[in-house]
Amino acid sequence: MKIKFSKKEILDSDKEYRINLINSITGIKPANLISTISKSGIPNVAIFSSVIHLGSNPPLIGFILRPETKKLSDTMENIREMQYYTINHINPFQIRKAHQTSKKLDKNISEFDLFKIDKEYIEDIDVPFVKDSLIRIGLKYKSKIDIELNNTALIIGEVVYIDIEKNIINTYGQLNLEKSNAIGVGGLDTYYYLNKLVEINKKYNEI
Amino acid sequence: MKIKFSKKEILDSDKEYRINLINSITGIKPANLISTISKSGIPNVAIFSSVIHLGSNPPLIGFILRPETKKLSDTMENIREMQYYTINHINPFQIRKAHQTSKKLDKNISEFDLFKIDKEYIEDIDVPFVKDSLIRIGLKYKSKIDIELNNTALIIGEVVYIDIEKNIINTYGQLNLEKSNAIGVGGLDTYYYLNKLVEINKKYNEI
Repeated sequence: MKIKFSKKEILDSDKEYRINLINSITGIKPANLISTISKSGIPNVAIFSSVIHLGSNPPLIGFILRPETKKLSDTMENIREMQYYTINHINPFQIRKAHQTSKKLDKNISEFDLFKIDKEYIEDIDVPFVKDSLIRIGLKYKSKIDIELNNTALIIGEVVYIDIEKNIINTYGQLNLEKSNAIGVGGLDTYYYLNKLVEINKKYNEI
Repeated sequence: MKIKFSKKEILDSDKEYRINLINSITGIKPANLISTISKSGIPNVAIFSSVIHLGSNPPLIGFILRPETKKLSDTMENIREMQYYTINHINPFQIRKAHQTSKKLDKNISEFDLFKIDKEYIEDIDVPFVKDSLIRIGLKYKSKIDIELNNTALIIGEVVYIDIEKNIINTYGQLNLEKSNAIGVGGLDTYYYLNKLVEINKKYNEI
């Protein structure tokens, strides 16, 4: 038995209902923490479910910025100031802390401190990483592409650093997202574990 | 024990290794079939792991187009001609068929026929949906935003139709992606099941 929604029914639906529905229908989304730091040295970390692979040569990753919220403006302001940011997979035991980083805070309060998320600085990147994240990416800011249809923007960075737990990557460069305890997000606040089902290309069968 | 990659190590790595690595590091991606039809009436269906939520008011969904492959150009040409397309969640028992739709075919051959994927037409939308998909979206083409950094593009559509199996949506508009057997993709060819772990907002606890 199917429920059907016409364009009119979607637009006429209760605001909360529509937000939940439209946020859920694209399917599973990756759960990442994006970390930045202000020029004055205050680290910021916020949950994003819109991180997206854009290309491998050069290695480019994007995420969608929703400019209307204060939280995300801090992220963008810091990226503009410092030109670097980090993307960190959310560790399953940090889901509730990570989820709380979507709250709007004063720019002078660091979510790392408030929510007791440990940070770590690596090599010559001046922006913190999340200490307990098993897959971490350092990025250099490349471009902000405005999406005029709804005043969002696609923020693009080039990958300049990666670290990964050794037992979750094989000799072909593939990651096992089940072994890495990667988390998926559905809609606004439902989190899922991943179970590996099938790897189509038979030569990739190491992990 | 961690493996670390500097920018130089990423750029100097073997091409296949880098493609696998960069395609995997953003985390889990949604597995969808995008269906279009040409002006001359030949339906096309192709797998995409880059479908992304852009906003709920208006309800906008994007996906990344890689212009260099023939397959994706067919998709874009059809969208430009017909102005409508459909996004269909991949049903677990269709993963191998769906994966094959990434192959380059002559424009006159329909992947629906070749790979024996059943199609279905609904209401006044002239583009086929995938019959066995449990979550389906009809979209009107709105905009193509070029990403000059790597010659890709973000294709944006407005949601004009949705259908969903009744037992996977609750009264708040949330979908249960485990119940819907939604599939995630890691990297290029690894598929994952989802297991619901936690719903943060307590009032959403119906399904």
